Amino acid sequence: MGKDFYGELQLGILGGGQLGRMLIQEAISYNVNVHVLDPDKNAPCRKLCDHFECGSLSDYDTVFNFGKNLDMLTIEIEKVNVDALEALEDKGVIVYPQSRVIRLIQDKGLQKQFFKQNDIPTSAFQLISNRESLRNANLSLPFVQKLRKDGYDGKGVKMILNEDDLQTAFEEPSIIEEIVKFQKEIAVIVSRNDRGEVKTFPMVEMEFNPQANLVEFLISPSTYSFEIQQKAEELAKKIANDLQIVGLLAVEMFLTEEGEILVNELAPRPHNSGHQTIEGNFTSQFGQHLRAIFNLPLGNTEARSNAVMINLLGEEGYEGLAKYEGIEEILAMEGVYLHLYGKKYTKPFRKMGHVCIVNADRELAIINARKVQEILKVIA
Amino acid sequence: MGKDFYGELQLGILGGGQLGRMLIQEAISYNVNVHVLDPDKNAPCRKLCDHFECGSLSDYDTVFNFGKNLDMLTIEIEKVNVDALEALEDKGVIVYPQSRVIRLIQDKGLQKQFFKQNDIPTSAFQLISNRESLRNANLSLPFVQKLRKDGYDGKGVKMILNEDDLQTAFEEPSIIEEIVKFQKEIAVIVSRNDRGEVKTFPMVEMEFNPQANLVEFLISPSTYSFEIQQKAEELAKKIANDLQIVGLLAVEMFLTEEGEILVNELAPRPHNSGHQTIEGNFTSQFGQHLRAIFNLPLGNTEARSNAVMINLLGEEGYEGLAKYEGIEEILAMEGVYLHLYGKKYTKPFRKMGHVCIVNADRELAIINARKVQEILKVIA
Repeated sequence: MGKDFYGELQLGILGGGQLGRMLIQEAISYNVNVHVLDPDKNAPCRKLCDHFECGSLSDYDTVFNFGKNLDMLTIEIEKVNVDALEALEDKGVIVYPQSRVIRLIQDKGLQKQFFKQNDIPTSAFQLISNRESLRNANLSLPFVQKLRKDGYDGKGVKMILNEDDLQTAFEEPSIIEEIVKFQKEIAVIVSRNDRGEVKTFPMVEMEFNPQANLVEFLISPSTYSFEIQQKAEELAKKIANDLQIVGLLAVEMFLTEEGEILVNELAPRPHNSGHQTIEGNFTSQFGQHLRAIFNLPLGNTEARSNAVMINLLGEEGYEGLAKYEGIEEILAMEGVYLHLYGKKYTKPFRKMGHVCIVNADRELAIINARKVQEILKVIA
Repeated sequence: MGKDFYGELQLGILGGGQLGRMLIQEAISYNVNVHVLDPDKNAPCRKLCDHFECGSLSDYDTVFNFGKNLDMLTIEIEKVNVDALEALEDKGVIVYPQSRVIRLIQDKGLQKQFFKQNDIPTSAFQLISNRESLRNANLSLPFVQKLRKDGYDGKGVKMILNEDDLQTAFEEPSIIEEIVKFQKEIAVIVSRNDRGEVKTFPMVEMEFNPQANLVEFLISPSTYSFEIQQKAEELAKKIANDLQIVGLLAVEMFLTEEGEILVNELAPRPHNSGHQTIEGNFTSQFGQHLRAIFNLPLGNTEARSNAVMINLLGEEGYEGLAKYEGIEEILAMEGVYLHLYGKKYTKPFRKMGHVCIVNADRELAIINARKVQEILKVIA
């Protein structure tokens, strides 16, 4: 860090949602002064930081002014004004992950090109400038269309299955990708600090809620073969090194039916696929992100236990002041850890919290997670 | 709780020091609105709560007004105005631990009498009203004199070894106790919720810094015989039941040279002898305190690993803005967890943080803890 930062460092977080909240929960142990910028005046971080500012993350002046007197900035969401971050870097503010990394990852087109240029296996794709040019695509139907920018949690993604779907396809700059036949979605979280130390968390297996297109269920560590796990982890390390990122990088991948690994998407920050590390691993992803950006030695990423993570999503059919059903019942079960995100209002599929279930017996962890999923509900 | 409290409960904490800070760190996962009262405007909790109030904990009006609109109050220090707490209870505010428990524990004389009345083994003692009456004490020299009220962290304790020491003995109401020849100081943290569920954490062994009279080094779990551990844990359970406390209770004990267990002192709150539970046990003492006061099922207290805790005390000879030496070096070691308390100023023996060292091998955990103790320094 070049300075004795403890108790003095002014750290800004762009975004004040649950990822920022869990990052602060960890940062408390480091005496850091935390500043948060978020457009929602009720953001989950608002009461947990030294200074909360309500403002737009995509407005140049707002981001620049928020950061200009801070020592260091990090993000908990990619959709931020990168020009402002670049100007702040020029001014001497440390921005981790670096603005150029965020710029690249913000744009799914640039991401895909980066994969191609660096021999990182990924599904076939094509950049598309508008709806009309979709008709002359090199990829044949069916395919997936993704907006190049601003998609998240399944938003900004369309399946284009037939000619009819072409009518309602996105008009904005997008990419199209061939549909991958995968046996499992997997993820590896990797971290890198400024001295070039790189460490991966063990590969995890994900199950998506197809309706909400959100991670619903996550199992750590994976029971796939050592070869597959090693391949996935090496790939994540290679990407971190190719990017020269400082901070955490979540690498979402497909394990295809043929046993090939294809990189799907990157997120340069703590990620939903790493929440189980809080109780399941020796170092949590949040602790690791802090170690990485503070240029401290990276922590031990080994699993302490089998851990299953389930997202607690707002129940369908309910919108309004959140109420929680079943908390008492799940906390009577062994190895169940509840994390509520401090969101006042629920709506269908909104991420309201998560639960981590640990057990020495993997099957029991999964069984208990299914039970928790049945019992715990967010209604209004 | 009688109401669906998540996100609605207004919880007050009397005291805003490190214990409150770590309690908040855990409470973040429960959507609780936290209010803190502390006389120090720079208290470690000040930036981590919904509402921070700077004011005296011993002033009736301050405590009453702080608590009157809250749903629930708890403490992180015993030295609070109990009359105000009693009035708040009468008004319907839930106070856990209950005011009568705090009143009893605040007074070392009442504590000792409670032990006696309930057949809880403790060292011989006598209540003393003033310095003069010390001369006619039933206990023969040498003995320990402790102020009945307001002693903490070794303050309010005097060794009365000879006639000369009687001249400088405390004048205020006190107790005198025979000096116990012990082989080890041990502690058990027990918790009890309002439905009468009682659970103990495994017994731990403590080593004190004789100069500062503070816990310096703590080892969990103990390797004493099953019989001794069980006896200590049963004793802690009995005390929790006798008191009908709701919340956490730390029971400090002496294991005498003859293998007898004598109860030394109680603390009705999270305690220094339980910090290692954050990484070392399935449930942390802070999580358990919240479960107890929210009347939720108590969590699994088993050890996940051997854990050694060391207090990070302000280095002798330094006073002023705190600086930390050796953080990078200790974080390069495996299984080392740093907890800084966010205190701006250091002074000799001030508790500035703690470090928890976990290891599957108990001896290695101890060796690593000794290393951390040598490397890590708080200077100014």
